Amino acid sequence: MPDKAIRMTRAATDGRNRPVLLAIAGDSATGKTTLAHGLERALGPERCVSVCVDDYHRYDRQERKTKDFTALHPDCNYIDIMEQHLQLLATGQPILKPVYDHSTGELIRPELVEPREFVIVEGLLPLFTKLSRACFEVTVFLNPPEDIRRTWKIARDTTKRGYDEEQVNAELTTREPESAAFIRPQQSFADIVVRFAPIPGRDDPPDTPLSAELMLRPTIRHPDLTGVLAPTMQRAIHLKLTRDSDGRPVDTLHVHGYVPIEESRTVQKAIWSALGRAGEPPSSLGELSPGKRSEPMTITQLLLLYHLLDAAR
Amino acid sequence: MPDKAIRMTRAATDGRNRPVLLAIAGDSATGKTTLAHGLERALGPERCVSVCVDDYHRYDRQERKTKDFTALHPDCNYIDIMEQHLQLLATGQPILKPVYDHSTGELIRPELVEPREFVIVEGLLPLFTKLSRACFEVTVFLNPPEDIRRTWKIARDTTKRGYDEEQVNAELTTREPESAAFIRPQQSFADIVVRFAPIPGRDDPPDTPLSAELMLRPTIRHPDLTGVLAPTMQRAIHLKLTRDSDGRPVDTLHVHGYVPIEESRTVQKAIWSALGRAGEPPSSLGELSPGKRSEPMTITQLLLLYHLLDAAR
Repeated sequence: MPDKAIRMTRAATDGRNRPVLLAIAGDSATGKTTLAHGLERALGPERCVSVCVDDYHRYDRQERKTKDFTALHPDCNYIDIMEQHLQLLATGQPILKPVYDHSTGELIRPELVEPREFVIVEGLLPLFTKLSRACFEVTVFLNPPEDIRRTWKIARDTTKRGYDEEQVNAELTTREPESAAFIRPQQSFADIVVRFAPIPGRDDPPDTPLSAELMLRPTIRHPDLTGVLAPTMQRAIHLKLTRDSDGRPVDTLHVHGYVPIEESRTVQKAIWSALGRAGEPPSSLGELSPGKRSEPMTITQLLLLYHLLDAAR
Repeated sequence: MPDKAIRMTRAATDGRNRPVLLAIAGDSATGKTTLAHGLERALGPERCVSVCVDDYHRYDRQERKTKDFTALHPDCNYIDIMEQHLQLLATGQPILKPVYDHSTGELIRPELVEPREFVIVEGLLPLFTKLSRACFEVTVFLNPPEDIRRTWKIARDTTKRGYDEEQVNAELTTREPESAAFIRPQQSFADIVVRFAPIPGRDDPPDTPLSAELMLRPTIRHPDLTGVLAPTMQRAIHLKLTRDSDGRPVDTLHVHGYVPIEESRTVQKAIWSALGRAGEPPSSLGELSPGKRSEPMTITQLLLLYHLLDAAR
C-alpha cells in the first residue's frame, strides 16, 4: 500500500475544513454515475459536489479518430492536470474544470467547481496515479460482468451519446486492450470493489434486481457489520470471510437482489440505525432511473455514506 | 510596498528552475499584446510563453449583456482562479487555461500552458490582487493618453472583434467608471510605467513614431543607464530624475520617436552591449505590425529583456 504514507501525512497535516473525497472508478457504463448520483442527492448540493474526471480528455471525439489510442488511454487525458485539480479540491480550493460534452464529443467552456464538505470523483482513471489516489479518503471500483456492462453501454450510448449499436460493439472491441492495461488494474487500489451481477445458478425472472458483491478491503476501517446482520437477514445479506486475489484476508458482503423488498428494507434500517442515524435511510438511495429501484444499490450507497460521514467527523 | 515581503519569501524559498513571470497590465487597447509579442519572439517559443489573463472572464459576451458591469470588473472574472494559475505557473507547474474567443465573444475549450523559463502575463487585471502581484518578478503598466488609446481601440475592435465604431465609443463610455476603479489603480503597483505619446508642443508629421516615457520605479533594480547614455545621445534618449505621484524619487527615461532611425539604433546597440550582449539586438523588437516599426518600442522591449534575463540568472 504505497499510498498509505501519503494519506497519513495528509491526515496529520490536515486543516479541519478539508473536503472528503470519494473516488468511484470503473470502465465505461459500469454504473459510476448512478452510484454517485444517489449519494449526491442524499447529502444534498450544500454538502456535496460531483466531478467527472473524464472531462480531462486531451482530445475531442473528432481528434481521437486520428490517434492510435482511445479515450481510455492515459495519453488521451490531461492526467497531470487531473492530479493538480484533485489536490486543489482536496485542500479546499476551487478549480476551473474542463468540460467534455458527451452528447457531441466536443470539449467546451470550462466550469467553476467549488469544493463542498464531500466531493465525489467518478470516471475512468481517478485511481491511475499515486498522487491522484492520495487525494481520496475512500476509493471504489465498479466491476460488473462484461456481458452486463455491454448491455448497459449499448442502452446508454445509443440513447444519450449519438452512437448506434454496431458502433458501440466496435468501440468495445477497440477499447478492450486499453481497458485491460489501464482501467481494470485500478481495481487493486480500491478500498471497496463492487460487483452488480445475477447470482449464478438461480433462475430468477428477468426483472429481478441484480445482486451486489462488495469486497471490503482492510485498507480502510469498515463498520462492524457482524452485529447488525442478524441470522434472520441471512437470505437478504451476509458477510463472507474470503481471500483477495493476492491472498490477503478480505470480507465480502453479499447483498441479494431476489429477496422480497421488505426484507431488504429491514436490513437497510438496521444498518442505518447501527450507523447512529435516526429515522429512515434517505429515499434518494437505490434509484437506478426514475421509478426503478435496486435494494442492493441502496445498501451499497448506505455503506459509502457511512464512510463519507465517518471521514468527515 | 506590501508585496515585497511575499516576493522576498518566494525568492528565498525558490528552487532554481522557477519560471520568471513578467506582468504587462493596462486598459483595453493600450498595446499590451504588441509589447509582449516582440519579447516573446526575441526569446523564442522554447524559452518563453505568453498568457492573457482576460481569458479568465466569468461570463461570455452574451451573458454580460444581462449584467450591470463590464468585462473590466473583477466580478466579471475568475480572479481567484487567475491567482491560482499564476501561482502554479510561478512554481513551474502546467495549467489548463480557459480561452475567451475575442472574435466571437465566446468562452471555448481550454488549452494546456506549460511554463517556460519566461512567462509573459498580459491583460486587464494581472496586478489586481496582492497574491497575483507576488507572482511576478517585473511588472509593467501601459498608460497611453486616452485619445490615443481610443484611436487604437476603434482600429482594432472594428477590424478584429466584430464591433462598429459607434459601439466601441459607447463601450468606452460604459467602461470608464470601471477603468477608473479597477484598471488604472494597478499603475501604482507597476515597477515600470510606460507611456507612448507624441511630445507636446512639437509639430511632427503624422507618421512620426510616438515617443515613449518610461517611469522606472525603485521597486526593482534597474540597469545603470547613466554610463550608457552619452551626451551625444541626448536627442534620442535621456534620463530625468523626477518625483512619483506620491512624492517618491523616480527616474524617467524619455525616448524620442522623432529622431532619425540611425540615432535610435546607436542607442539600442549601446544598451544591448551594456547589458553584456554581443551583436545586434534581436530584430523582432520594435515591430508594431508587419512592416511597421517603432524605435521607442524597441528600447522599451530591450529594457524589459534586460530585466527578464537578469531575473533568470
